[in-house]
Amino acid sequence: MNFTLPYDQYLAIHRYKYLALYHAFRAAILEGILPGGTRLPSTRQLAGLYLVSRGSASQVYDMLLADGYIKTEKGRGTFVSDDSFFPAAGGEPVYREDSTDHQVVDLPRVGAGLNPAGEEFRTPDREFLEPVAIPLSSWGERLMERQVSIYGQTGEDAISFRSSGMRIEHFPYGEWRSALNYAGGKGGGMLEGYCPPQGEESLRRAIAAHLRITRGIRADAEQIVLFSGSMQGIVLLVQLLLEPGEPAVVEDPGFHGIRRAVEIGGGKLLPGRVDESGLVPENWAARLLFVTPSRQFPTGAVLPLDRRRSLLEWARRQEAVIVEDDYDSEFRWGGRPIEPLKALDREDRVVYIGSFSNSVFSGLRLGFAVLPPSLVGPVIAAKALYEPLPGAQLEQRALARFMSTGGYSRHLRRMTRIYGERARIFRALLNERLGMLFQPLPGDSGLHIYARWLRPEQEYTAFREAALRRGADFRDAALYRIGPGSPAACFSFSHLDAEALEEGVNRLLLAWKDVQKYT
Amino acid sequence: MNFTLPYDQYLAIHRYKYLALYHAFRAAILEGILPGGTRLPSTRQLAGLYLVSRGSASQVYDMLLADGYIKTEKGRGTFVSDDSFFPAAGGEPVYREDSTDHQVVDLPRVGAGLNPAGEEFRTPDREFLEPVAIPLSSWGERLMERQVSIYGQTGEDAISFRSSGMRIEHFPYGEWRSALNYAGGKGGGMLEGYCPPQGEESLRRAIAAHLRITRGIRADAEQIVLFSGSMQGIVLLVQLLLEPGEPAVVEDPGFHGIRRAVEIGGGKLLPGRVDESGLVPENWAARLLFVTPSRQFPTGAVLPLDRRRSLLEWARRQEAVIVEDDYDSEFRWGGRPIEPLKALDREDRVVYIGSFSNSVFSGLRLGFAVLPPSLVGPVIAAKALYEPLPGAQLEQRALARFMSTGGYSRHLRRMTRIYGERARIFRALLNERLGMLFQPLPGDSGLHIYARWLRPEQEYTAFREAALRRGADFRDAALYRIGPGSPAACFSFSHLDAEALEEGVNRLLLAWKDVQKYT
Repeated sequence: MNFTLPYDQYLAIHRYKYLALYHAFRAAILEGILPGGTRLPSTRQLAGLYLVSRGSASQVYDMLLADGYIKTEKGRGTFVSDDSFFPAAGGEPVYREDSTDHQVVDLPRVGAGLNPAGEEFRTPDREFLEPVAIPLSSWGERLMERQVSIYGQTGEDAISFRSSGMRIEHFPYGEWRSALNYAGGKGGGMLEGYCPPQGEESLRRAIAAHLRITRGIRADAEQIVLFSGSMQGIVLLVQLLLEPGEPAVVEDPGFHGIRRAVEIGGGKLLPGRVDESGLVPENWAARLLFVTPSRQFPTGAVLPLDRRRSLLEWARRQEAVIVEDDYDSEFRWGGRPIEPLKALDREDRVVYIGSFSNSVFSGLRLGFAVLPPSLVGPVIAAKALYEPLPGAQLEQRALARFMSTGGYSRHLRRMTRIYGERARIFRALLNERLGMLFQPLPGDSGLHIYARWLRPEQEYTAFREAALRRGADFRDAALYRIGPGSPAACFSFSHLDAEALEEGVNRLLLAWKDVQKYT
Repeated sequence: MNFTLPYDQYLAIHRYKYLALYHAFRAAILEGILPGGTRLPSTRQLAGLYLVSRGSASQVYDMLLADGYIKTEKGRGTFVSDDSFFPAAGGEPVYREDSTDHQVVDLPRVGAGLNPAGEEFRTPDREFLEPVAIPLSSWGERLMERQVSIYGQTGEDAISFRSSGMRIEHFPYGEWRSALNYAGGKGGGMLEGYCPPQGEESLRRAIAAHLRITRGIRADAEQIVLFSGSMQGIVLLVQLLLEPGEPAVVEDPGFHGIRRAVEIGGGKLLPGRVDESGLVPENWAARLLFVTPSRQFPTGAVLPLDRRRSLLEWARRQEAVIVEDDYDSEFRWGGRPIEPLKALDREDRVVYIGSFSNSVFSGLRLGFAVLPPSLVGPVIAAKALYEPLPGAQLEQRALARFMSTGGYSRHLRRMTRIYGERARIFRALLNERLGMLFQPLPGDSGLHIYARWLRPEQEYTAFREAALRRGADFRDAALYRIGPGSPAACFSFSHLDAEALEEGVNRLLLAWKDVQKYT
């Protein structure tokens, strides 16, 4: 495959080569010149081809990565994303069923030469500025070494089992709009109103009431601090509690966001073993522990009461803090939830973290923490350092209204019905049709299913690639592991209806047949 | 003065003494039992009176401070805020003209004794939980040592020359509402839409266009990252660029937020001297410098072109980064602005920081940075660590709409007229009536006036106190100094109309007469 990346026209417009190159790539991807799955040159190769510094080449890929146009696969290289989910794309999806292999791009050289049409070309002579490389702090270095692409790779005709949040058709948008109007209605309040750095009191009160009823947590609004998503809370807690060089216990497998927060904060990861009942308590030499007891991420295991007590006892002995990340407990289709650690926490050593991104809609970035008394002041101060006055006041007020008028509870009940039905259907499909490949772990709540791969490891890689070619994508659980481990997959199902679930499973089945045929 | 803090009823409700105490104080302040200006006991005294730990006592004050109910004055103690601006307050303002002195509160003891009505009372015997003190990281310790109350202390009948943002009556709220409706109108886009961590592209494009026209900065939307307020950007830049222990140049006097960001980040302050032309360039041994060239904060000095060039030359030699904080340049009533450093920046060593909090309304927390190419990736990564998906999408889209439809420019023109007139009036009043006390520094833009105190230092303190008693409040510029310096005041005027400006100056004049009479 040979083609021309329309680079010259961008060279004429942009002050910097790296920007010209970025726009050239972007356009080529959007126009389908570089289809999904195309393997791109390494940054070293790119630097050589376009006569830019290695830093500029990285910069171009970083920007495309941040936009979601390309993706990197560890140890494999950089590829054009498999789809056309990009908002600016429009038109035909780029993903093509027939693109059965990752093509390696043959990029036109900068300088002079023949282009693919046989015409001579010459890069304009005017001097381009080469951006200065600015050295980073060690925090910055750690940050950049641990970049993760957080974007899904799903297109319209691909079925993706990656999580993609609440679907618009399920969200009571009319009710939300009137909550927004209510919140913004009294102009004076909205525009001049004072909002403390910990967030709108009305929303903190609504959350306290909700937690009391649904999770048995007795918290006052004063113990709650609002964040723009739960990650903000997690990172600030690491900064406040973990001295660089000190260890923090994290689940293995576990949420990679927590791992990144600890490592970028300069802390040492102390991996905690996870079995079919969740985190196995040990006598860790640490003062900070992150755990997902309600539904272990990613396995979905529910931590039994005795382990919860052991963790609290450990925290008492060690004078440690436990951060309980209850990322996914709003949706439950059976059984009774075990009390959160926070509700059992007599000594105030537990921080409880929750979020509305799964349960309302993903564009609403709202998380919160319920804090032990002595951490309320420090966490507010940490938040206020970055945001002396909090953002998203309007949405905080609207959510408080949505909760206090009962809209949120009604919405949760409706979605629990819908998601529960989907969980039942998907679990049955997995067992019946893919039982020879995967062993789904049991669970009665949450929006994804974790499934262990039952066959040899090398077949897993082949299967994942075949599935992508068949138009079905799922998350590789390897991302969540620290140590070695056997292959597993994470299937988010809640955004897919019965038909899509069936179609997705069928594609996986076809992919497996491909693997058997060609290997 | 003797009174009962209604503490027992809160003891009965709350699980923790510190929460009961917090609520008791809060109610007493809101109900006027503790009027504005009342001096409160020290945390040590409070701990003794209520049989709580010193940490709990601090916690109570921290919470009240965060809420704005109380304030601390360095070296003087803790006081009830002078007013009733608290949103929850309602009813009569607490501030009383006749409360001419700071009363010291005589709090009822916990335990047993006689209350002021002569009745015997006894604190309930049930054991209260004493919150566990959780040790903080050195980052957390630095954070807590540098707490600053960021709240104004203005009440309805006090005239405050502290900045308080855009007034509702001046903001084209109808246009803003329709921009909000437009932004949220296409539900699908809003709810499921993908927003990159650097913020809405439409707003970044609108900002790039605005900067090109108004500031001569040639920037692409790709070089712009949005923050929830400019402080978020400043703190993240410190984290990315400054190694703990390394020095950073900050203006002295200068914005205390920048100073805190450097110190909490573990950096060393290298104070840069400021004269009547702004920062004086030196051959600092540093790799990071913060400067406010358009209008030095707080003096209002405009940095001349040759100094701007010297700073850029210094940055080139040192391979340093300059952060140009253009916090207040939208409003100008004369003269031509000098090109921002960013527009002169040939080597890409300048980060330009701006904000909409002054020019739109203070509840809209939106700041941005224009970044050198090699910092775009790191800053996006830093922002994305805390907020993988950005908050306030709705408001970002609405602001983009407000800007692209011309609403923002119209609003700026209108406000420049209004604010310019107020600047003229206030400057004249200051010169005519308070010329014996203050020397206002010249300036032709910005929303506050910096004025040097012309009389002996001890009279300044007496004057400030007298002014508070007369119902006029202004910022003491001591907050902005690192080294020693002579007294000065900061007067924000833009939120006050001609009548209020006149009344405010009259109160200051009366206060000065009080000082002359009693000292």
